[in-house]
Amino acid sequence: MNPKINFTPGPSQLYFTVEDHIRTAFRDGVPSLSHRSKKFEGFYQDTRQGLRELLDIPANYHVFFTSSATEIWERLLQNLVEENSFHLVNGSFSKRFFEIAQQLNKKPAKSEVDPGQGFDNSISVPSATELIAVTHNETSSGVSLPLDFIYDLKAKNPRALIAVDAVSSLPFPDFDYSKLDCVFFSVQKGFGLPSGLGVWMVNDKCLAKAEALLSKGISIGSYHNLPSLYAHALKNQTPETPNVLSIYLLSKVVNDMIRRGITNIRRETEYKAAILYQALEKRPELSAFVTQKSFQSKTVIVADCGDLTEKVAAKIAANGMHPGDGYGPFKKTQLRFANFPTHSKEQFELLVDTIG
Amino acid sequence: MNPKINFTPGPSQLYFTVEDHIRTAFRDGVPSLSHRSKKFEGFYQDTRQGLRELLDIPANYHVFFTSSATEIWERLLQNLVEENSFHLVNGSFSKRFFEIAQQLNKKPAKSEVDPGQGFDNSISVPSATELIAVTHNETSSGVSLPLDFIYDLKAKNPRALIAVDAVSSLPFPDFDYSKLDCVFFSVQKGFGLPSGLGVWMVNDKCLAKAEALLSKGISIGSYHNLPSLYAHALKNQTPETPNVLSIYLLSKVVNDMIRRGITNIRRETEYKAAILYQALEKRPELSAFVTQKSFQSKTVIVADCGDLTEKVAAKIAANGMHPGDGYGPFKKTQLRFANFPTHSKEQFELLVDTIG
Repeated sequence: MNPKINFTPGPSQLYFTVEDHIRTAFRDGVPSLSHRSKKFEGFYQDTRQGLRELLDIPANYHVFFTSSATEIWERLLQNLVEENSFHLVNGSFSKRFFEIAQQLNKKPAKSEVDPGQGFDNSISVPSATELIAVTHNETSSGVSLPLDFIYDLKAKNPRALIAVDAVSSLPFPDFDYSKLDCVFFSVQKGFGLPSGLGVWMVNDKCLAKAEALLSKGISIGSYHNLPSLYAHALKNQTPETPNVLSIYLLSKVVNDMIRRGITNIRRETEYKAAILYQALEKRPELSAFVTQKSFQSKTVIVADCGDLTEKVAAKIAANGMHPGDGYGPFKKTQLRFANFPTHSKEQFELLVDTIG
Repeated sequence: MNPKINFTPGPSQLYFTVEDHIRTAFRDGVPSLSHRSKKFEGFYQDTRQGLRELLDIPANYHVFFTSSATEIWERLLQNLVEENSFHLVNGSFSKRFFEIAQQLNKKPAKSEVDPGQGFDNSISVPSATELIAVTHNETSSGVSLPLDFIYDLKAKNPRALIAVDAVSSLPFPDFDYSKLDCVFFSVQKGFGLPSGLGVWMVNDKCLAKAEALLSKGISIGSYHNLPSLYAHALKNQTPETPNVLSIYLLSKVVNDMIRRGITNIRRETEYKAAILYQALEKRPELSAFVTQKSFQSKTVIVADCGDLTEKVAAKIAANGMHPGDGYGPFKKTQLRFANFPTHSKEQFELLVDTIG
């Protein structure tokens, strides 16, 4: 129940400094701190500043907090779409994003391919599209869309906003935020925190769109609409009582990552992904589920293990590690491996030795 | 920054067992546990069962989790109101509840009195009202509505659903849930947990109302609409990745409270409130903000301290205690004292000795 190394793609292994930070938080009274206190405002600002520095987020972006990335799916569709969103669907999570637009009585369109597949450049986005919804990294299947593909989609459809779900990829991708409008993630994946916090980064165009919908008399939600998040953020506050402890922990982990260096984190992620994909290539009974190399995720690596799935999982477990199950219909034939900043090179080498 | 005894009404003093439970949670790998695992399903069920037992919630009620009570305001208006909600407004929080209905493009009506005031039985609820929204305990002003008043409101308007905001009163009030339809709270007040979890209890009529709105083509939200919460709860799961750690901690604290006995908790709450109100009566320069005894909250006690506010606060602080500021316009002239299960009789006796 408490494996030494947890490779499930989320909630995943905690970032290795989290337990220490929790101890400090309790010593300093953080869990019972008022969210209207100066102390809260201080680390709220630290968290947002730290994220800007770590991810190189430009000044025309705002950083807001919600309770989950699932909530952000809903909020961004409420705030950025009057009628027409367009979704790239290639797995369970991108599909859910599309379905939420339906549940909000929007009129979403989609381009859909099978799980494990990417998209080609021939995608035609309807001209009335207000928002293009892209899942950078499909946690269910291990498909990652190349950054140039995403930028290209925006460049070809400049009148639409583009929203990028980076739930299970950040902090790895080195996004050029000037070519995007809205990016979001949740903290229990790459940042290695307990679940219960989503981070939503939007540029000024998103704020303007929300204001435009509001002025048309369209409901954009209440406490977590963009104007409300923005007005509170100006005071370093949140509209509601948030997950105070999680915002505190995120500030600490982000600063740990800044000290470690994002370039190092990215280089190590590349290395760990390379040795695991190599190991899957070498063993004839195993293979990467995503066959096209340009779409292979570096942060969630999905292995087709067929009949051997249970045996491989047991061997990994015997070595003190815990792989993630395949998602949905692939539960019995695939294993998923998170490759997040908390997973060390040594842990991946041990994993590869065990599989190989 | 880390007072020994925190009387702010929320986030408040942690329940005294929380830090131990966090240690156990980390030892058992709870923070990185998948919300689709059997272990999560186990304590999710424990939490809901425990709440049923502690609060005596009948079988036709369902217990769901959100990220905050602020979220529940929005969700319940989305799910239970097509157009007409009716709000009793007597302070900042009941007012915010009303405003959220406006932001969702509903057509809310209200009966409003000044902060510190209660309501009399002459309230006339418009006949088209679908939902009566009642704030049992106004955290901003320390007004608590008598249970019989609330039951009476429902009895006189049987066709409307009644929703009770019990954010800063539970687990103290011994509600007769059969006379209500929907009750909710957040965990950072009476339950003494870190913030980031709301608990929403609804009866079957609420589920039916949400289904009826949905069948009319009205959007009731997405992942956190009532049918979605219900469908997932049947599997002991949540629609999204929730605040797993908080659900775990709530199960532990609820079981601690069951062992301690809800009757004891309620009796001690009465005692602590009585000695504090008595102390305020005794000192001529101080008084209870809520003058009508039947509306005086037992769980959030608000003291008018006028020019002495700063001096009284300093004296309390010098004794290792931290009072809550007055809310909004009353910041400089009032102090608020939470009287939650974690606050001991001894702590209240010390508080009273310091004030008296």
